[in-house]
Amino acid sequence: MAVLVSRRVTLVSRPHGMPQESDFALEDVDIPEPGVGEVLLRALYASIDPYQRGRMSEARSYARSLELGDVITSQTVGEVVESKDPRFARGDLVLGQLGWQEHAVARAGAVRKVDPSVAPITTALHVLGATGLTAWFGLYDVGRPRAGDLVVVSGAAGAVGQVVGQLARIAGCRTVGIAGGAEKRAELLELYGYDAAVDYKSDDFRAALKDACAGGVDVYFDNVGGRVSAAVHPRLSIGGRVVICGQISQYNAERPEPSFHPGLLIVFRATMQGFLVSDYAPRFGEALPRLARWVAGGTLRYREDVTDGLENAPRAFIGMLNGENRGKALVKIAEAS
Amino acid sequence: MAVLVSRRVTLVSRPHGMPQESDFALEDVDIPEPGVGEVLLRALYASIDPYQRGRMSEARSYARSLELGDVITSQTVGEVVESKDPRFARGDLVLGQLGWQEHAVARAGAVRKVDPSVAPITTALHVLGATGLTAWFGLYDVGRPRAGDLVVVSGAAGAVGQVVGQLARIAGCRTVGIAGGAEKRAELLELYGYDAAVDYKSDDFRAALKDACAGGVDVYFDNVGGRVSAAVHPRLSIGGRVVICGQISQYNAERPEPSFHPGLLIVFRATMQGFLVSDYAPRFGEALPRLARWVAGGTLRYREDVTDGLENAPRAFIGMLNGENRGKALVKIAEAS
Repeated sequence: MAVLVSRRVTLVSRPHGMPQESDFALEDVDIPEPGVGEVLLRALYASIDPYQRGRMSEARSYARSLELGDVITSQTVGEVVESKDPRFARGDLVLGQLGWQEHAVARAGAVRKVDPSVAPITTALHVLGATGLTAWFGLYDVGRPRAGDLVVVSGAAGAVGQVVGQLARIAGCRTVGIAGGAEKRAELLELYGYDAAVDYKSDDFRAALKDACAGGVDVYFDNVGGRVSAAVHPRLSIGGRVVICGQISQYNAERPEPSFHPGLLIVFRATMQGFLVSDYAPRFGEALPRLARWVAGGTLRYREDVTDGLENAPRAFIGMLNGENRGKALVKIAEAS
Repeated sequence: MAVLVSRRVTLVSRPHGMPQESDFALEDVDIPEPGVGEVLLRALYASIDPYQRGRMSEARSYARSLELGDVITSQTVGEVVESKDPRFARGDLVLGQLGWQEHAVARAGAVRKVDPSVAPITTALHVLGATGLTAWFGLYDVGRPRAGDLVVVSGAAGAVGQVVGQLARIAGCRTVGIAGGAEKRAELLELYGYDAAVDYKSDDFRAALKDACAGGVDVYFDNVGGRVSAAVHPRLSIGGRVVICGQISQYNAERPEPSFHPGLLIVFRATMQGFLVSDYAPRFGEALPRLARWVAGGTLRYREDVTDGLENAPRAFIGMLNGENRGKALVKIAEAS
């Protein structure tokens, strides 16, 4: 087999605060060859997610840090170019944890097929993949909403937040979305069907939040942390549940400020719980068929923000951390053949 | 009936920071007369508790604030002097929410009899009363320890903490107590049977805590908040539970500093939950007979710190907020007749 060249994006320096494009490098490498039980994949779309920021830091977290020189971790949808495993054939579309690179070899057991007849293949990277599952288990299992509850979502126009609001509505809850800017606010109401929407960048944020949350917040699904969440916490209802899904406002802080008084949990007899979607892997089968049915039927809507070209992944990532994306951030690496 | 004089302690100014004795007044008032369905009580012992500090502030909390001039809220064990309800007779010993005063009238339905043959009557104010129930429901219902878990308790020599450690040990857990000073540390080991004890005032606090918590903290029962808790949080185990019972380190802060990063809950997939023992009132009967059996059998040990004389209640209260008490803080108002 001819040795061909593949491009990949690696970490060349650990960001301090907001990442810079210079923290990343675009490298040419030889295309690897698959061994027995492996497949060679050509990447089509890669995912851009807040958690990637955590991997770039040396701080202890739930997953190991990237080393300098490592390919940036991401989920990717790709096409099988060569298979040395009987479960896959050339041309199969698969989802895997392949990182920001054009080609990768993966163990056959570590990827799963994506069926393009169910929904566009990119949805495997969001509403029918990690972010949809994050919304599902975070809301339904951790938040435990009951019909009639008031569910407030921060980062509500983001990849997870857009799904959470809709899942809460489907479960009979009233929903309030928080996002930054008038355009995102309109999107919350018009595209994702939130009952109310609050712009945290507006001068009347606190007053608007208070109005929207009259009666108390039964579930607060928190993607952002920081000052937005500090405004929501005093509005909890008795027995309220705070789901800690992400804290994107803190990911670029050199030294994140503590933002929460645990004593508030006594006042409201409230619960605050963090979770990782990967812990629910044995139960993904509970969620995916329903998410797929709702997407197919138009009950569950989504929006993608696709950046073209692997070389632009770092810029798209920085834009996502700045809240510039509208919908799930993805990078398109190649056309399906 | 002759009009007699009774003394009571009232709030005359709202404390700023640590309360001063001048925030309280000792007043003489006429002894009230009970109406139909009421009892007149002569107080014997009153309770001194951290939650009373919250009532003295105007800040919104789970209970209404005291008004200036109000008697300080407390639980009291007293003797029935006169009964206008068939359920009680002169000489009965009862527990009620009577406040810091020598005499009080109570609705018969709002007090319950205390049986002096079970244990000393003062125990109705702690291990067989509010603090024992707080420990029971906070640990067993909120903390949900499993045998073999590592349970860490802050304020471990305090009224609630001393019971929590023993309940955890009874449930098959390993226990680490945190308290201030070498004497309290020794008491944790020798009197309350903690497996390990850490002095938060010592220079090696963090190193000692790290050693004691190797393997991770499954349940952290938090009575204090602030820097002590900030040292425990990073030592949680995956799936750890943090029970927010009290935050005594913050009660006198003019402006409590947020002390917690919710993002830590993601790292550990952990839960932080606040509770109020009063919410468990319908279930007190589950706990009290077992607590009483363990006290009677010597399995559950306690220590009381009794201050003599109602007039000394404010000083004892301030001492308790400063951590000067050794065991449950009580004030003795009168001898039983």
